Amino acid sequence: MKKTLLLLALVGAATATHAQSSVTLQGTVDLGVGYAKGSETSRTQLISGGNTTSKLIFRGTEDLGGGLYAMFWLESGFNADNGTFHATNTNNQPSGTTTPGGMTFNRRSIVGIGGPWGEIHLGRDWSPNYEPYTGKFDPFGLSAGVALNYIGSITPNQIRASNDIVYVSPKVLGGFSVNVQHWLGENPSGSQTSSDGTGSGARLSYDNGPLNAAVALVRTKYAAGDAIYRTVAGAYDFGPARLSFIGTKNQQGTLKESGWLVGVTVPVGATLLKASYSTLGVDRPGDPEGKKLAIGAVYNLSKRTAVYSTLAAIRNSGGARYAITGATTAPNRSSSGFDLGFRHNF
Amino acid sequence: MKKTLLLLALVGAATATHAQSSVTLQGTVDLGVGYAKGSETSRTQLISGGNTTSKLIFRGTEDLGGGLYAMFWLESGFNADNGTFHATNTNNQPSGTTTPGGMTFNRRSIVGIGGPWGEIHLGRDWSPNYEPYTGKFDPFGLSAGVALNYIGSITPNQIRASNDIVYVSPKVLGGFSVNVQHWLGENPSGSQTSSDGTGSGARLSYDNGPLNAAVALVRTKYAAGDAIYRTVAGAYDFGPARLSFIGTKNQQGTLKESGWLVGVTVPVGATLLKASYSTLGVDRPGDPEGKKLAIGAVYNLSKRTAVYSTLAAIRNSGGARYAITGATTAPNRSSSGFDLGFRHNF
Amino acid sequence: MKKTLLLLALVGAATATHAQSSVTLQGTVDLGVGYAKGSETSRTQLISGGNTTSKLIFRGTEDLGGGLYAMFWLESGFNADNGTFHATNTNNQPSGTTTPGGMTFNRRSIVGIGGPWGEIHLGRDWSPNYEPYTGKFDPFGLSAGVALNYIGSITPNQIRASNDIVYVSPKVLGGFSVNVQHWLGENPSGSQTSSDGTGSGARLSYDNGPLNAAVALVRTKYAAGDAIYRTVAGAYDFGPARLSFIGTKNQQGTLKESGWLVGVTVPVGATLLKASYSTLGVDRPGDPEGKKLAIGAVYNLSKRTAVYSTLAAIRNSGGARYAITGATTAPNRSSSGFDLGFRHNF
Repeated sequence: MKKTLLLLALVGAATATHAQSSVTLQGTVDLGVGYAKGSETSRTQLISGGNTTSKLIFRGTEDLGGGLYAMFWLESGFNADNGTFHATNTNNQPSGTTTPGGMTFNRRSIVGIGGPWGEIHLGRDWSPNYEPYTGKFDPFGLSAGVALNYIGSITPNQIRASNDIVYVSPKVLGGFSVNVQHWLGENPSGSQTSSDGTGSGARLSYDNGPLNAAVALVRTKYAAGDAIYRTVAGAYDFGPARLSFIGTKNQQGTLKESGWLVGVTVPVGATLLKASYSTLGVDRPGDPEGKKLAIGAVYNLSKRTAVYSTLAAIRNSGGARYAITGATTAPNRSSSGFDLGFRHNF
Repeated sequence: MKKTLLLLALVGAATATHAQSSVTLQGTVDLGVGYAKGSETSRTQLISGGNTTSKLIFRGTEDLGGGLYAMFWLESGFNADNGTFHATNTNNQPSGTTTPGGMTFNRRSIVGIGGPWGEIHLGRDWSPNYEPYTGKFDPFGLSAGVALNYIGSITPNQIRASNDIVYVSPKVLGGFSVNVQHWLGENPSGSQTSSDGTGSGARLSYDNGPLNAAVALVRTKYAAGDAIYRTVAGAYDFGPARLSFIGTKNQQGTLKESGWLVGVTVPVGATLLKASYSTLGVDRPGDPEGKKLAIGAVYNLSKRTAVYSTLAAIRNSGGARYAITGATTAPNRSSSGFDLGFRHNF
Repeated sequence: MKKTLLLLALVGAATATHAQSSVTLQGTVDLGVGYAKGSETSRTQLISGGNTTSKLIFRGTEDLGGGLYAMFWLESGFNADNGTFHATNTNNQPSGTTTPGGMTFNRRSIVGIGGPWGEIHLGRDWSPNYEPYTGKFDPFGLSAGVALNYIGSITPNQIRASNDIVYVSPKVLGGFSVNVQHWLGENPSGSQTSSDGTGSGARLSYDNGPLNAAVALVRTKYAAGDAIYRTVAGAYDFGPARLSFIGTKNQQGTLKESGWLVGVTVPVGATLLKASYSTLGVDRPGDPEGKKLAIGAVYNLSKRTAVYSTLAAIRNSGGARYAITGATTAPNRSSSGFDLGFRHNF
């Protein structure tokens, strides 16, 4: 006994010429059981987003005629293990971090216009840095097997920016595209920190068949020291296996962090096997460094639904104490973790 | 524009007699780049809702037969520039203001029943004052060109009320309708402030072809001094131009604020040109007063999508220091602002 | 009764074998006017959820073939009188209670897989105790006429649990089914309170035509004293009337509370008459005890929409001071209440 809800473009019929309506309601619920082990504390936990972030999306496009379109994209990340939502940030500064819990469009909140010349949109968006961190280059994306090289302590606008003006080019010259952004800290004028949270970034991507590559530069101003991210990534799909790498050099004031990742994915029937090796080092006496190995398998029950498992281990040296999320480990000690989960896109 | 999700009552067909279901998921994403200038501080910012408030709406009606219908309307306002949502208020008193950030149905949260005799609904609703503040009488509505006369310092239930019981009449006598409301502060009995936040309001509207008019009276009790709003508005569409005015007299305890607005809109092809002049004065020694001029244009790319721009300037006298949102200005100094934005209804 | 929203945007992916997408968007808006009287304070108020909790639900299932399906269910409870949402709890401990206001999936947030062997899902779910508290056994469910026997002061995981792993069996042996759960407090290892918030529960239900029965046991660990719930419930539909009972024995550390409910519902045309008598006693010197009588009527305007009214009165003895929600009453004094409301499912 079901009632079926059909999306009908009632509007369009009589009065509007380009009123082809569409709203897409979609998302992901991803939950797994995980264990994170450290030399100090360990933890058994339910993990939301072990394969793909749990999220709710409202989005749509409208054909404006003449090759133009309007678009919007509103996306909320949530912790499916307890029903809370992720926080957002209103001004690209620590003072703008919101209380987590209630639903926000923390992941994306944009409206824009596009055409053959590309797309301009405004709002809260993925920063140019984001693409290299996704499954496009990291076999595990921003999940449990999350690469060390982008979980350092420098984070402003590493992944997203609010009050953002974005231009995305179409693909040209057989695969090149550009993403250019400028975001605002929105502080009152006249003080030393007026420009805090204001920044810019750009990414050049190349996508042509089996070859993907991207290079991104992001800089946000802070009177106490600009946050700067330099990221490069590449991947080649040989068919039986796809190899990828990412390199990152991040900096805020005198703090410098750098790392890299190499990854591989191997499709075997409905299963995707994957592995990555990533590092994160801090430019500081003693050269603290973490090295992480992650291996995993994703078994696709359908196009939208999968069972997955991940194993990961971190080794620390030079006083570093990186640990699998949920555990804490002493300097130079190891940490390891495991998850077994279920991901459903709707 | 609206998308209607029609429920094909596959279930209902068999068992229910009035099962024609409908849920409408709609909203607005409106973002622009703005600059607000004041003598003290200025600010460059992304502005959400420069033309129309960014919002998400879930609503529907059900035909109950016999001319009756059930209805619900759940509406959330949000800041599309950073993904946060607007706060609501639980008890029509300062103590009931919620932490902003997470999604609430701050704009409207009602359920009710209607018929030929009108509609009764309960919940959080627009107060009787609301209609005169909308685009129906103010060319700019509650947007960047926002009229001075309703942004004073007296605000409880000026625009919305929680715990509200509302009757809306049908149109009678060729265009008259009535909106009568009573809302509750929901305080425990037996104290001096037991009635704080409890209030009532009514609006008489007249809508007939080119002529619109409304008069509203709102009063909420507070032991420290009732908040009272008296509002009158009118508009006439001459065809080539539509003229409108609003007058407001607000009062809370000994504080009295009054103002007025005159507005004009001129459609030129797909463009709507608009201008308004508004004032706000406080009944206090020195007669502090602000005067604001706003001019703007909205170019409709489709029925749902528009590009818009607004210019506004405020002059202060008598010690007043009103400023464009985002700027601060010294007493008797001016403030001005500009926005350029994009609005999409879905 | 489900509404299935076909996402045309997603369908048509040529490669998917089981790509039949479905998202159901549904919910309830329920509001009434109520008066709660106590010997100390009384209150007139709008009540959200007097008949059924106001809520928003996103859910769906996917046919995975071979008798398997994937499912998700995301459900948010809200206060329709003011637009705020209910809080959730992240770790089954007082420290995990979130700030109320913004939308969370506090009522349910699960993803899982099912088949002929039953269903396994993960996330935040109703605890095994929940079913006996619903309209299945209590004529008033968790509404204004709410039974005394489950509103005591022992509450952790009484109704829901986060970080929960759930198995639900199919119906076997002509009506038996089992719901088994284990939830995690997710504390770091190595402290005395590491297991706080971790617990388990199980329910055995029997549903066969007019006969429903359930017995549930729930236990969550706390170093300061485990929270334990023992619940039994039964109902039989004689046709002209349906009789039901619930018995509860709850315990946390040295605090013990127990109570029972007897209920009856009588359908008369489109109206459902209902009554319940419930008790709650604390095992403490003086034997404080409350006894509550509730009577009500629900008039169904359609399958989805109803008008309802409830009258309830509480008597206290032994120093107890239970009161209708919104009122406070002195020890051994009475409390009474009344509501008149409107409930719409969409």
